[in-house]
Amino acid sequence: MKADGPIAIIAGSGQLPIQLVEHLERTGQDYRVLAFRGFAAPELRRRAHATADLLDLKTIMNVLEGWQPRAVSLVGAVRRPGFSALLGAYSLLRNMHEVKEVIARGDDQVLRGAVMLLEERGHRVVGAHELAPGLVAPSSLCGKLAPLDHDRQAISVGLDLLNALSAFDIGQAAIVAREHVLAVEGPEGTDGMLRRVRRMRQSWLGLRRREEGGVLIKAAKRGQDLRVDMPTIGPKTVLEAEQAGLSGIAVGAGSTLVLDQDETLATADRLGLFLVAVDLPWMEPHHD
Amino acid sequence: MKADGPIAIIAGSGQLPIQLVEHLERTGQDYRVLAFRGFAAPELRRRAHATADLLDLKTIMNVLEGWQPRAVSLVGAVRRPGFSALLGAYSLLRNMHEVKEVIARGDDQVLRGAVMLLEERGHRVVGAHELAPGLVAPSSLCGKLAPLDHDRQAISVGLDLLNALSAFDIGQAAIVAREHVLAVEGPEGTDGMLRRVRRMRQSWLGLRRREEGGVLIKAAKRGQDLRVDMPTIGPKTVLEAEQAGLSGIAVGAGSTLVLDQDETLATADRLGLFLVAVDLPWMEPHHD
Repeated sequence: MKADGPIAIIAGSGQLPIQLVEHLERTGQDYRVLAFRGFAAPELRRRAHATADLLDLKTIMNVLEGWQPRAVSLVGAVRRPGFSALLGAYSLLRNMHEVKEVIARGDDQVLRGAVMLLEERGHRVVGAHELAPGLVAPSSLCGKLAPLDHDRQAISVGLDLLNALSAFDIGQAAIVAREHVLAVEGPEGTDGMLRRVRRMRQSWLGLRRREEGGVLIKAAKRGQDLRVDMPTIGPKTVLEAEQAGLSGIAVGAGSTLVLDQDETLATADRLGLFLVAVDLPWMEPHHD
Repeated sequence: MKADGPIAIIAGSGQLPIQLVEHLERTGQDYRVLAFRGFAAPELRRRAHATADLLDLKTIMNVLEGWQPRAVSLVGAVRRPGFSALLGAYSLLRNMHEVKEVIARGDDQVLRGAVMLLEERGHRVVGAHELAPGLVAPSSLCGKLAPLDHDRQAISVGLDLLNALSAFDIGQAAIVAREHVLAVEGPEGTDGMLRRVRRMRQSWLGLRRREEGGVLIKAAKRGQDLRVDMPTIGPKTVLEAEQAGLSGIAVGAGSTLVLDQDETLATADRLGLFLVAVDLPWMEPHHD
């Protein structure tokens, strides 16, 4: 680590790495991108300074050694099995028994393990929210539509539920209609959960959907390290929510990333969904 | 209600109504079956004394009026959208606004609503576990295989999780591998959840499956009315669990129904899964 070194972006799949790189470029910051082969989007791979296989932790560490970055950020590799595969790479450094233990410990611990490993090597690990605060959902985030009373009830139940689940190694999102929990996010991710609710509603009598609506509530856990696997939404999330018959989306203010904030809000307005940020009782108050 | 009237079984889908009827027959008890058209299995419909559409609450009430049963049991209609459709039937008796409210309140409340409605009409509503105690999982339930240490850890996490979820209107089961929660049951039901985990594991790297195993934990909630929607497993549950790559199943002793107990245990033994009953810290201790 050198104080005047570049920012190193270790990039997995999705839009987040691209938007982070665009932000760093716009603000004239020195950066290097290490893209995961088979994961990083083509648009990002063209801009990458190095490429590595997910399992090749030795190359990753050597590349970072060469760059001497002042900070390292793990972004976009939030596709969880990808990350566990990365950590399967422990085997290149450590013994097989330890690898198995780490993998068995589940995603939260695996991600914390990745950060630990980087820190052991002397790197400073930072979150995307620290590098690009503009991507973070402000408390003032709000589309044209406002949640109705029964949506507010669903948001309140959802926050209570996510709070109750904080102690467990499980997802950061749920879908609630009034007081009725339709889904809790597991390792399948938010889009997977939204498609599940969509399928459930298609295969049923259709009665519930019209009556219920439902809200996607997504928030960081109590005690979550925001440097890894920070909750993220974008225009695609809004599209999936609409197709699942939901009436809106609520995200934790100050601890959720919103990709393409303008486009995300415009999509919500266009499809008739509300989109709001809510203060999380279990997080430090956020000042926009 | 007459003290010497028959037992009335209001029967939805699945094996539970059939096994309950067989038990009542074996023990020489007088009973009448009201089967839901389109839901009750053919084998049961042949034995039914009356048939009604799910939405036709008026017929249901008239039939019960004629039978003067000493007790009524709602079984097998645990297919939830079925039950909400039944209660959509409120419209035949009550006004539309109230119907919407009831449906919006979610499944737990809807089922409690059905019981309430029957009780308002003077019926005594009992659970399948009261009519056929032999179907209930005893504390001593145990196949040939015993859970390993990491399975016990998963069971413990799963029980903590279900306890934490008791306050919410959501399912009664979860799948946990060591400390890692793979799925929480929503309205899709236990089989739906097991198939979800199976699909997740097929689409991923296969790495986790071999390391993890995983346990299905199924239990009544804190404060659950066991007369409605009592947790139930059977041979099919074991088959689905095996296909999801799980190492075993743990159910709440005294508050879970096990269909075909011998067959269920034999299936678990044959497929190499453990099957145990565990005492729930939040239930009255169960004496076999």
